[in-house]
Amino acid sequence: MKDNSRRLAEFFQKIQTDIYTAFGSEEPEAFFLPDEWQREGLGQGVSRVIEGGAVLEKGGVNYSQVSGASLPGSATAKRPELAEQPFTATGVSVVIHPRNPYVPTSHFNVRLIQVGDFWWVGGGFDLTPYYGFVEDCVLWHEQARAACDLHRPHFYPQFKKHCDDYFYLKHREEARGIGGIFFDDLTELSLEEALAFLAHVAEAYRKGYLALIQRRKNSAYGEREKKFQAMRRGRYVEFNLIYDRGTLFGLQSGGRTESILISLPPMVAWHYQDKKALEPAEAALYQQFLPARDWV
Amino acid sequence: MKDNSRRLAEFFQKIQTDIYTAFGSEEPEAFFLPDEWQREGLGQGVSRVIEGGAVLEKGGVNYSQVSGASLPGSATAKRPELAEQPFTATGVSVVIHPRNPYVPTSHFNVRLIQVGDFWWVGGGFDLTPYYGFVEDCVLWHEQARAACDLHRPHFYPQFKKHCDDYFYLKHREEARGIGGIFFDDLTELSLEEALAFLAHVAEAYRKGYLALIQRRKNSAYGEREKKFQAMRRGRYVEFNLIYDRGTLFGLQSGGRTESILISLPPMVAWHYQDKKALEPAEAALYQQFLPARDWV
Repeated sequence: MKDNSRRLAEFFQKIQTDIYTAFGSEEPEAFFLPDEWQREGLGQGVSRVIEGGAVLEKGGVNYSQVSGASLPGSATAKRPELAEQPFTATGVSVVIHPRNPYVPTSHFNVRLIQVGDFWWVGGGFDLTPYYGFVEDCVLWHEQARAACDLHRPHFYPQFKKHCDDYFYLKHREEARGIGGIFFDDLTELSLEEALAFLAHVAEAYRKGYLALIQRRKNSAYGEREKKFQAMRRGRYVEFNLIYDRGTLFGLQSGGRTESILISLPPMVAWHYQDKKALEPAEAALYQQFLPARDWV
Repeated sequence: MKDNSRRLAEFFQKIQTDIYTAFGSEEPEAFFLPDEWQREGLGQGVSRVIEGGAVLEKGGVNYSQVSGASLPGSATAKRPELAEQPFTATGVSVVIHPRNPYVPTSHFNVRLIQVGDFWWVGGGFDLTPYYGFVEDCVLWHEQARAACDLHRPHFYPQFKKHCDDYFYLKHREEARGIGGIFFDDLTELSLEEALAFLAHVAEAYRKGYLALIQRRKNSAYGEREKKFQAMRRGRYVEFNLIYDRGTLFGLQSGGRTESILISLPPMVAWHYQDKKALEPAEAALYQQFLPARDWV
């Protein structure tokens, strides 16, 4: 693969811009402020960070292009022969923690990794509602399926399952949310089609999540819902710090801690045996939404 | 080693009782409620949990005796030949998150692990202040040194360094707190003396921390201090979920999640670049207290 780092930078930066612009348009009080960084021997990036918004309590839309002398083995299960080779990773990652507990938290990521002449793409998006609505889950998965079906018929079922399997908290025996799609080590497309697929995934995420923000941002809520949100955000922290390969790889390989940990929520609480006495509205999440199921 | 599980159970339960009784005496509103559990194929324990106290916002004093068919390799770096053997671990672990940000968070643990005829002890305690006071750090380390010096002169310097090295957040380049002592794989004492040492360590922790609660629990504080406490508690979560071997071993080996995660704080906040604009009172923690130093 010839040096196309500039082209990739532009491609992923456009994804970043489209996303923070769309979500930012729903937020009346705060802005996605840019934080541009560059670090010798690592790479550069721009984090777009929002905090303290009326709609978006905290969020980060990160673009970065980083290089390393040695690809960690964990980054490529399928091609162990590429481990410890010099690599470049370009991508965008997003986590949005809305203030209103009726708006779900969402996560999105797309990336392209290059090692010499080899390259592959990965990414996806998943949704973590606090209060479940069937029609929201259906909308979310319809967007995911539509983006996948533009490219290969086996993508959606395969990537949906991968997402359910991956975003799971074993120690809690709980799914992180209602899933979406997640793929890695994808090599079966040409470069042109791979980028087109990532662009479609980004568009599906952006449009789907924007619709959910608009649909739920004015729902009335009180202390009770914020308390449940704080507890469930704790599970988000547990997932990201215990299981998330991207987070752990980033932290352990000397990545930019502040950018990586934008994903952590603004206000979180842990209580002992917090699942023990849930009322029906909150228990419904555990009973009807978190167990993996087909939404479309 | 003959079957002395009953004797060990009584020994560690006394440590548990002494600790929660002492700390509970400082708390006017809440109690350390017992939660006894037993699980086939794992073992049994009693968690003593306090939540929502005026002085103790959240805390757990856990006793447990668990057995497993296969000792994880990570549990015994010094004796790899014992990995995958049946084992029993008996011990007490404590984490206290006070409400007042001028009272530090503290952590304590003692344990005895048996594999066939082999056994060893481990444990220690460390302190995580939000606002540092030199006299508190000196008191804490004096207690630690005094307990160690009753047994071996090399214990305190060795275990103090081990503590500084272990309770360190590499991705933040920050110590978790001002340390204390931490030891593992300790085999050089007879069983009688090992238990006497653990009892001295427990007593030093109990008396030292009780003194700090009493000294600081009535300090005036406001929003600003609670905000800084919430941010620093985030570091505590990061340490426990990313680095703490006991937590990860427990979660990954099917331990009792609720007991293990009692250590997580009641109210936590993450903000982007939270170290960037600290005022002098908060910056002092980073400048004068967290960098490892000799306190006695």
